[in-house]
Amino acid sequence: MDSIRVFAPATVANVACGFDIFGFAVDNPGDQVTLTISDEPGVRITDIIGDEGRLPREAARNTAGIAIQTYLKQINRTDLGLDVVLHKQMPLGSGLGSSAASAVAGVYAVNELLGRPLPVIKLLPFAMEGERIACGSAHADNVGPSLLGGFVVVRSYSPLDVIKIETSAKLYCTLVHPDIEVNTKDARFILKNEVSLKNTITQMGNVAGLIAGLMTPDYDLISRSLVDVIIEPVRSILIPEFNEAKQAALDNGALGCSISGSGPSMFALSRNVQTAEQVGAAMQQAFLSVGITSEAYVSQINRQGPKVI
Amino acid sequence: MDSIRVFAPATVANVACGFDIFGFAVDNPGDQVTLTISDEPGVRITDIIGDEGRLPREAARNTAGIAIQTYLKQINRTDLGLDVVLHKQMPLGSGLGSSAASAVAGVYAVNELLGRPLPVIKLLPFAMEGERIACGSAHADNVGPSLLGGFVVVRSYSPLDVIKIETSAKLYCTLVHPDIEVNTKDARFILKNEVSLKNTITQMGNVAGLIAGLMTPDYDLISRSLVDVIIEPVRSILIPEFNEAKQAALDNGALGCSISGSGPSMFALSRNVQTAEQVGAAMQQAFLSVGITSEAYVSQINRQGPKVI
Repeated sequence: MDSIRVFAPATVANVACGFDIFGFAVDNPGDQVTLTISDEPGVRITDIIGDEGRLPREAARNTAGIAIQTYLKQINRTDLGLDVVLHKQMPLGSGLGSSAASAVAGVYAVNELLGRPLPVIKLLPFAMEGERIACGSAHADNVGPSLLGGFVVVRSYSPLDVIKIETSAKLYCTLVHPDIEVNTKDARFILKNEVSLKNTITQMGNVAGLIAGLMTPDYDLISRSLVDVIIEPVRSILIPEFNEAKQAALDNGALGCSISGSGPSMFALSRNVQTAEQVGAAMQQAFLSVGITSEAYVSQINRQGPKVI
Repeated sequence: MDSIRVFAPATVANVACGFDIFGFAVDNPGDQVTLTISDEPGVRITDIIGDEGRLPREAARNTAGIAIQTYLKQINRTDLGLDVVLHKQMPLGSGLGSSAASAVAGVYAVNELLGRPLPVIKLLPFAMEGERIACGSAHADNVGPSLLGGFVVVRSYSPLDVIKIETSAKLYCTLVHPDIEVNTKDARFILKNEVSLKNTITQMGNVAGLIAGLMTPDYDLISRSLVDVIIEPVRSILIPEFNEAKQAALDNGALGCSISGSGPSMFALSRNVQTAEQVGAAMQQAFLSVGITSEAYVSQINRQGPKVI
């Protein structure tokens, strides 16, 4: 095998109550990366399709490129030549984990291409290097679920402790990406450095409830726990019509609805595909009522992580 | 049946990372309440054994008395006459949920005596009234686990949402009560009203990890998650030799160790009874090294809640 193409899923980080610790993967959208072995040593981004020229072509500054480079260094294979093609199949800067999906697809692809020298869980630190390039910090709440599939808790960074939550809950995710821009760094900058003890307690209760709800599974408990009293009240200000779109989701039967990552995309979880689609249409309508167009995606929670295609 | 005697278990609130939201019950110690139907209407505390005269004898000011009175009012049976005897079998003001155990035993007993007009879960608000008398606020992190058994999350107070965590984890609890006094209200007063966002995130990660660890069960994850970066660093100052006793517990194989409720008692969790006993001896020795005597209790996590004896 001298060429491989891998899909890695988009992800929803934070998931209402779990700021910086919680994320899940979806079946759609996602990114694809094609790797081809070349005689010339080094990692080259030979093409990026679908980014409208916005992403860096230099491997060391590209999330997939740096993830692959860091991986090759770790396994002492910097002699390897790799041509990389990125197929961006989701909006950039959307809060859907676009940079994470590219990094995960890249590092998963090279590991498969080389006959899987490392187990999948060990690929996480390399994908996190991609996040460091893209966002300024090596966070794991997008790369974790993109790599492992399902719902993931980042319990700790030092040492890194990423836990996949076992759940039999059948959940459909609606993602709506309004055509506006929110910079991830700005979205972090507006957060307060202090939280009231009262809100911390409320949030901890919801974190506990969400994990218990997923693992039981208990859909009512999941719904009651999808509440964010710390981050959403601040960041939602950056998203026009946030409250209306959220209310539209809840009115149409969603279990919960909040910001995906640092936005501007929003996610909603529902118990079946019909509800999830209805929720998406209602959310899009809310944005459209003030002239904001959007893209909507509906899919199941992704359980598998990346896959060779 | 015109008389009944009920045992209700002691409880560990907070459980390291879960301040105000988390608690569990133990098989030992606990309190007992005896109720006897009387011809004279009204609730009377006729005797309290083991409190050294410290608890109020007036029913409306006694945790068990007020819980029973509130219950009888709710079910329109204020005509009933009840003589109440409290058998206090654990230290008062110890952080082991003494007031909660009495309130739970009382309200469970009267409900059984009357042929169980209310399901057990519905007794919670009456037991919480006992806590309001004892501590100034109707908290549920002791009465919840004492009434339901096992590990309990108080997700929300408004509306009240108390969740029993289903776990097959086999855990032994060591409780050590040093013979010093910490006032619950003081212990709350020294807490800061603000928490850094960083510590909030760390704590949320541990809350998620603890619930996932219990439900899986994953003992290593339970151990890694039994960490409190918000409350313990402040409240432990009120407990002489806290750090030494905690270190002794961990050195002797405990999965984790922290303050029980608002202290001064400490709890440790272990995987078997031998470890739990060794942990208790080591913790007692740490206190004794500075001349502080203590009582130690070792038992399994209580799964049943109150029982008729």
